[in-house]
Amino acid sequence: MKAMFKMCTLGAAALLLSANVQATEENDKAIEYRQDALGVMAWQMGPLGAMAKGDIDYDAEEFQLRANNLAALAGMPWEGFVEDSFRGGDHSVDTGALAKIADNMDDFKSKSDDLVIETTTLAELSRGDDFGAMRKQVGKVGQTCKSCHDDYRAE
Amino acid sequence: MKAMFKMCTLGAAALLLSANVQATEENDKAIEYRQDALGVMAWQMGPLGAMAKGDIDYDAEEFQLRANNLAALAGMPWEGFVEDSFRGGDHSVDTGALAKIADNMDDFKSKSDDLVIETTTLAELSRGDDFGAMRKQVGKVGQTCKSCHDDYRAE
Repeated sequence: MKAMFKMCTLGAAALLLSANVQATEENDKAIEYRQDALGVMAWQMGPLGAMAKGDIDYDAEEFQLRANNLAALAGMPWEGFVEDSFRGGDHSVDTGALAKIADNMDDFKSKSDDLVIETTTLAELSRGDDFGAMRKQVGKVGQTCKSCHDDYRAE
Repeated sequence: MKAMFKMCTLGAAALLLSANVQATEENDKAIEYRQDALGVMAWQMGPLGAMAKGDIDYDAEEFQLRANNLAALAGMPWEGFVEDSFRGGDHSVDTGALAKIADNMDDFKSKSDDLVIETTTLAELSRGDDFGAMRKQVGKVGQTCKSCHDDYRAE
């Protein structure tokens, strides 16, 4: 009976361990996914920022392509910010996402919604010819990124 | 005079070295970008494949979202496949992209165009209600990925 109990305890421990390994792996995948998505956004943002600052010449076709890409991407990263995938959580991949995201999900969600709104506006503007407005809007998009990074990303 | 010549040679060597470091860094960034973009595509493809295979239930809203995301992403990775960023090229980031891509750019480009076409068709189908056609089209998208991986990605 004692041996049976021991076997059951070991079995339960093994199951728990395996469930835990699986949770860690799933969190790792979510972290890698959101980092990938944010990396693609940063790449697309690069030429937009450079054109807005005057570091490179304004190219209407490229501006519109990048702005459309950015708007298409803006809703994607957020599903990767799952429970237990923040700093101190259950994962083996490094992340700069602070644990406080979990306690401020409404604010985090509202900030990610802002990014969708601002990048959609940028994509709309990019189809017109008001480069002054486009430049200003690139600044707004950058501010939206920064606002979230300031609050929720490790330095 | 000899000392002057030596200084000039050293200066030229330093310039070349610095140009080379910059090229390596740019190739690294391009590799990371394309890997990020392909990673995001794989994540979006996951639930589509699972629904097509019947591993998870068909959910019209999620299917359409994933199919739209995939179509929006399908044109993005390819600008990251720049000269000298393939296996054996001038970079410090690991890549599975075979050197032969450089010698077969027309075919590579044609395969990437196919992916844009097939994912756009999938996104169009996802707005309808013919799940049989959607499943078949997920298979076509998967085949398009595989065709390029078979030819141009290290095992």
